[in-house]
Amino acid sequence: MSVEKCAQSIDLSHHLSQLSKAMVISPLNGGLEKYKSQPGILSLAGGWPSPAYFPISDISANILVPESFGLSPTELSTFLSSSHHATKEKTQAVTIPKYPAVKGDINLAMLLQYGQAVAQAQLQPFLKQFISEVYCPAFRDWTILINTGSTDGWSRAVMTLCNPGEGILCEEWTYPPAMASIIPFNIKPVPVPMDGLGMKSDDLENLLSRWDPVSRQMPRPRVMYVVPVGQNPSGSTMSVARKKQIYDVCVKYDVIIVEDDPYYFLQLGTYTFKDDRSPGATSSGKLSAEESKRYVSTLIPSFLNFDYEGRVIRLDTFSKIIAPGSRLGWFTCNPVFAERLERQGETSAYSPCGFGQAVIKKILTHWTYDGYICWLRGLRTEYQQRRDFFIDCLAEEFHLHAAPAVAGVWEGCTVYQASSKVKRTTDMTEKHPARDRTMFSFVPPIAGMFLWMKLHLDQYPSFAPGDEDTLDTKFWTELAENGVLFMPGWKFAANAMIKDSDSTGSGHFRVSFSNVDFADLKKAVTIFGRVIREFFREEDL
Amino acid sequence: MSVEKCAQSIDLSHHLSQLSKAMVISPLNGGLEKYKSQPGILSLAGGWPSPAYFPISDISANILVPESFGLSPTELSTFLSSSHHATKEKTQAVTIPKYPAVKGDINLAMLLQYGQAVAQAQLQPFLKQFISEVYCPAFRDWTILINTGSTDGWSRAVMTLCNPGEGILCEEWTYPPAMASIIPFNIKPVPVPMDGLGMKSDDLENLLSRWDPVSRQMPRPRVMYVVPVGQNPSGSTMSVARKKQIYDVCVKYDVIIVEDDPYYFLQLGTYTFKDDRSPGATSSGKLSAEESKRYVSTLIPSFLNFDYEGRVIRLDTFSKIIAPGSRLGWFTCNPVFAERLERQGETSAYSPCGFGQAVIKKILTHWTYDGYICWLRGLRTEYQQRRDFFIDCLAEEFHLHAAPAVAGVWEGCTVYQASSKVKRTTDMTEKHPARDRTMFSFVPPIAGMFLWMKLHLDQYPSFAPGDEDTLDTKFWTELAENGVLFMPGWKFAANAMIKDSDSTGSGHFRVSFSNVDFADLKKAVTIFGRVIREFFREEDL
Repeated sequence: MSVEKCAQSIDLSHHLSQLSKAMVISPLNGGLEKYKSQPGILSLAGGWPSPAYFPISDISANILVPESFGLSPTELSTFLSSSHHATKEKTQAVTIPKYPAVKGDINLAMLLQYGQAVAQAQLQPFLKQFISEVYCPAFRDWTILINTGSTDGWSRAVMTLCNPGEGILCEEWTYPPAMASIIPFNIKPVPVPMDGLGMKSDDLENLLSRWDPVSRQMPRPRVMYVVPVGQNPSGSTMSVARKKQIYDVCVKYDVIIVEDDPYYFLQLGTYTFKDDRSPGATSSGKLSAEESKRYVSTLIPSFLNFDYEGRVIRLDTFSKIIAPGSRLGWFTCNPVFAERLERQGETSAYSPCGFGQAVIKKILTHWTYDGYICWLRGLRTEYQQRRDFFIDCLAEEFHLHAAPAVAGVWEGCTVYQASSKVKRTTDMTEKHPARDRTMFSFVPPIAGMFLWMKLHLDQYPSFAPGDEDTLDTKFWTELAENGVLFMPGWKFAANAMIKDSDSTGSGHFRVSFSNVDFADLKKAVTIFGRVIREFFREEDL
Repeated sequence: MSVEKCAQSIDLSHHLSQLSKAMVISPLNGGLEKYKSQPGILSLAGGWPSPAYFPISDISANILVPESFGLSPTELSTFLSSSHHATKEKTQAVTIPKYPAVKGDINLAMLLQYGQAVAQAQLQPFLKQFISEVYCPAFRDWTILINTGSTDGWSRAVMTLCNPGEGILCEEWTYPPAMASIIPFNIKPVPVPMDGLGMKSDDLENLLSRWDPVSRQMPRPRVMYVVPVGQNPSGSTMSVARKKQIYDVCVKYDVIIVEDDPYYFLQLGTYTFKDDRSPGATSSGKLSAEESKRYVSTLIPSFLNFDYEGRVIRLDTFSKIIAPGSRLGWFTCNPVFAERLERQGETSAYSPCGFGQAVIKKILTHWTYDGYICWLRGLRTEYQQRRDFFIDCLAEEFHLHAAPAVAGVWEGCTVYQASSKVKRTTDMTEKHPARDRTMFSFVPPIAGMFLWMKLHLDQYPSFAPGDEDTLDTKFWTELAENGVLFMPGWKFAANAMIKDSDSTGSGHFRVSFSNVDFADLKKAVTIFGRVIREFFREEDL
């Protein structure tokens, strides 16, 4: 990657919200800082309990080894199917004493004390190396600030950057909780059209260049919310070229990019039909330093990587890497924003849980940087297998026809169109002449956890324009009544206009292949097949 | 305690803020609820990682036994001074496997998954019993909602109840971060005068009955923030009678009470001079069920205990009970507010950390309810010893004259006035004739972690009205330069007016006896003695 390096970030403080400007500097600590860290100082200032009263003498855990997963999807992992019994798990025991035995070790007593919103010293060195090696930001003074996960992170970014009455640029189909965080504050989603690579840069440029504050009833948006990898819900992933185009437009119109990237390490590669897949080499699961480096170089760069102006706030989270209940993530951004995001946190979520910080820090340092990369690489393989297995099931259940899309939301992608494999009787053919009609279509995602499914409601026997919502709900309910839950797609429309315009003749569902067992994935596809054929009256009754 | 029981809470939904009313109901879950909990349902709806990928096979901890502390302060605990070596700690080993061995056990896999903002099933039964037995709320349908600690709790309460431009009733001297959470939203502190029992009910009534929205430029406040036990910073504690008076005024003027009560279990009893203290009985540290009940009955009731209208939002936290880094607390309130507070959390801190929840749940259930009460009772003794030791040190260093205050912020309390013990030379006496002048005064707190110290700046040799700020800072700086940090009192003034009106001729400091070792407490008092005598030119030079 060629990276433009910049000596320092530009001053972006004019982007701070009125709220953020009014946030006071550590209300209790002003003036104390000078003395607090002096050796031997006796502080009777803080309302801190004595660590002698923390009823924990140490914490231990048996943690999985970083090479727990295979590195190529040669065969279905037996580990997965036996997950609930954990018979195959290889673990190592780690212990975190209350007080570190050696200086520099994890200080549990300190992590369980107040002040970790500020100090967070314990995770910094690991994250610093990780960000340098993996994201390689294009400006020098990038800063790390931990948070309680990306919900907290996004909420703090909004409070720090946006005023009521303003708008936030986002994908047409986007993550509803992110919108739920802004709408009550009278901050409005401003959807930007998408294609198979996510948000479109030319449409973004058009939108911003022609922005009329009067007719729009809001100033030109200064903030963008974007999920560039394995987008939620569409599953689309931005190429580096697209990211650079988006970034350039943001420079031109002075837009701050909030890069919410929980699926970054689930970059799964392209799907190919089972029979066309070449078997990968068997692998021990371990990565050499060289392989680790090579793997990192295959990842699509983060926006940080060419953020020569420091206008990106990147949100990372351990939710998909360790566990959602970690409630631990971090901002990488310029120091001006980092300081304000810290103040914002002091009056809301405060610091992440010390127990969680201790356990995660212990896992990371026990694994080491190379082990962590190996874990991420293995995780990718697991999700790749899940995606492949799920689409293989669909290919077994339906006739899948793959063809490139030339327009619309999937422009530039290979779209898979699904029709029934069940032969119809002559009677049925006469009633419903469209023999090979497409019941649904999708683009196999190259990242993330989701398959975004378009239901072709216009192929429904009695379809008439305007029936979309009713039919969509009817199908979803029939599927649920038969024991399978998909996520209704309309929930992800950035606003009501998007929902209506993109849903002419179709319905949408977000289908997650991340959680259930393989046997259940198979079972779910079989049920789905039966229900959808029945729905379209394709069932051979 | 005689408790008015009420069949149900009144409808308080008119108190919800515009923001809260705009908060959508679980943006991703609407419609799914009906099916999600059905046995055998295959959910491909949620973006949940497989628990097989959580790299933890189990967590263990060595936890302190609940009877770790003595139950009467007969002699200085040796445990405390050796805390950093933990040689005397008696611990028990507990383990939390990823998947529960027995149904009903802690489900770590579930706590590490998404959804715990809603479900939180695992802590509910324990907290339910605890609240019933200890707080005994006066309305039936009280609801528990966990949060990430009281900073999060208060922030969510503000967002749920208050609109910009409104005011919040609070004590004249109050916790600055609580104010830092409201001021940026253009919500203003409305201070109510205090005496030795905290907020005054007659002054509250006066304030509300005479409220003029025009001259005040805001509607009559509908929300109160109050720290009733071991108030921060004043250390004052409300009697049950005062609480009932406050509650009645709040009923009359339809005010919601947010009871922030982190020091509730640090009710320490009255201080008496060392020589006047009768030695308590030696105790094994264990409490019988009967003793446990008796102890609970000695605690001043929470506002919940006579909240027959469900207008109290009580904030509890494990910060002072387990550890601040727990980042775990809970709301007890009516179900209407609880539902909205939950929505508010879904767009900010989300759920508390699963690691922390698991460890704390394990500690509580291992200890059992009686063990937990024993722990709380022991903790109280520890802090009582700390307070007693600290004031004993002051009594050794200064001449302390105890006399009841008849007016002012300490009305009704026994105030300790401190003057120098050092004999002056004739020369010094000639220069500074006020021989027994009071240098500082305080009321020994009956709860909490803080001693609120009034510095008598008008006794400063060259004092002239208006010198307060300069002298206050001069003293604080001299103390800090000599290695002791107090918390400057002016930081706690609810607004600038309070700071000025209450500081005529005096300065204030909040001194915490909760954290440093006993030897260091002693050392700090010695340094303080030297610095303050020098400051008032009382040193025998």
